[in-house]
Amino acid sequence: MKLVRYGNPGKEKPGLIDAEGKLRDLSAVVGDIGPDQLGDAALAKLRKLKVDKLPLVKGKPRYGCPVAKVGKFIAIGLNYADHAAESGMPIPKEPVVFTKANSCIQGPNDPVMLPKGSVKGDWEVELGVVIGTRARYVSQKNALDYVAGFCVVNDVSEREWQLERGLTWDKGKGFDTFGPIGPWLVTRDEIANPQKLAMWLDLNGERMQTGNTKTMIFNVARLVSYVSQLNTLEPGDIITTGTPPGVGMGKKPQPVFLKKGDVMTLGIEGLGEQRQEVVPFKL
Amino acid sequence: MKLVRYGNPGKEKPGLIDAEGKLRDLSAVVGDIGPDQLGDAALAKLRKLKVDKLPLVKGKPRYGCPVAKVGKFIAIGLNYADHAAESGMPIPKEPVVFTKANSCIQGPNDPVMLPKGSVKGDWEVELGVVIGTRARYVSQKNALDYVAGFCVVNDVSEREWQLERGLTWDKGKGFDTFGPIGPWLVTRDEIANPQKLAMWLDLNGERMQTGNTKTMIFNVARLVSYVSQLNTLEPGDIITTGTPPGVGMGKKPQPVFLKKGDVMTLGIEGLGEQRQEVVPFKL
Repeated sequence: MKLVRYGNPGKEKPGLIDAEGKLRDLSAVVGDIGPDQLGDAALAKLRKLKVDKLPLVKGKPRYGCPVAKVGKFIAIGLNYADHAAESGMPIPKEPVVFTKANSCIQGPNDPVMLPKGSVKGDWEVELGVVIGTRARYVSQKNALDYVAGFCVVNDVSEREWQLERGLTWDKGKGFDTFGPIGPWLVTRDEIANPQKLAMWLDLNGERMQTGNTKTMIFNVARLVSYVSQLNTLEPGDIITTGTPPGVGMGKKPQPVFLKKGDVMTLGIEGLGEQRQEVVPFKL
Repeated sequence: MKLVRYGNPGKEKPGLIDAEGKLRDLSAVVGDIGPDQLGDAALAKLRKLKVDKLPLVKGKPRYGCPVAKVGKFIAIGLNYADHAAESGMPIPKEPVVFTKANSCIQGPNDPVMLPKGSVKGDWEVELGVVIGTRARYVSQKNALDYVAGFCVVNDVSEREWQLERGLTWDKGKGFDTFGPIGPWLVTRDEIANPQKLAMWLDLNGERMQTGNTKTMIFNVARLVSYVSQLNTLEPGDIITTGTPPGVGMGKKPQPVFLKKGDVMTLGIEGLGEQRQEVVPFKL
């Protein structure tokens, strides 16, 4: 299934995308798509619905993040060897983990606002993993059983705040609007192999990132297992799994950073596409 | 007011501590002590209650974290110059910010469980600041207006995972049970000066940390203002503001780390005391 939340910010309704790509409303079935709807049993109930009986939604509503009430938004750094190289960092021996503030989460096509005075805004197309079942010290072998599904994440970053303003990365990763997620939560049964998904990101129509989840250093199962030893993972938590090469910081001969009016478009095979316009800071 | 949440984990009821130190139940007044009860208007309503009419709670119930539904649990590193020195780190030019997973939050007297294989568990008594009103780019001058109140936090840390297992600190800070908070949320009207609070931590009855919030490098108002530029702060978010010297990692001639059976007791002037026993890892 492709689950979505649509409507104005803070007022999103649950929906799904049918086999013809049309949006159908789920409000009569579930209150929202959040922690209580992500476990295997809850998803199995949704899967039994007669989709053609669900009301079609007219028009082209905005999409929100397809998961409500995300508790933890955990991010993995340097998880593609060639991205580590372009960042001037060693290939990690174990996953690098940082945190994106859950308040940065927004819809997939909402504008990205650079923080006051920002000069090093950057992009990162990433595979997002949505936890469906509470996970604690789960083995790599069983880890995918705890996953509800997958989504596109743009791990928007401000490199000055990430790398030059203190000892940790979190400052540069959690500004408001820095977490576009969606458009869809694609349940894991629809993704035959999460380690074989093409991904891309364009800036103003020019290809910046081309990658494939097959070149991850630590695969999704390893990451879920690893993080589940650091924190109990709760339904609705999201792990974003790192980005392939082609970020602005790594461009030669000069880095390229986001500026007002830029448009990022990005997508992952089977998981849909996002589009964000970069807007200037406004209080 | 001293607001509390009491009862079994996940089933806590709201309460307050009266002038005689007795626990009274608030269940008939508010559903919980969480984001919706922390704004100035909501607190003013509670302040008008006739406390002696509220039911007394019998027995000695467990206390939970005095704030329900903490969204972001943001931590400040190296905010006391002498702690930076004992950690072998430079005095920061601006606040060092990292994240504690909100899933690590627990009651003030619940046992602390070291993660599997942990050998470098450590303690940090800290002043916690609870946000009452949404804050975004607030000035230092007005920052305290956005604070609901203060509480004791033990920023329990695993130094190997914090400092030797990758590039960021978050791994070593967010293990389950690593966030004892409470016993009370003391509203800001009761704290004449948050920069003049004595604080202490004992390990097995021996004094390890003695400090005072007056020696913070960046004071509470500066921290709230600073973090409000990184993330929109929401009601119920907690900022823990760094620890004075005396952590186990900094002990001479040898560092001292937590082991099974250790007991940490800690407190801050006017904010109450905590007691945690260290228990071994159990799945």
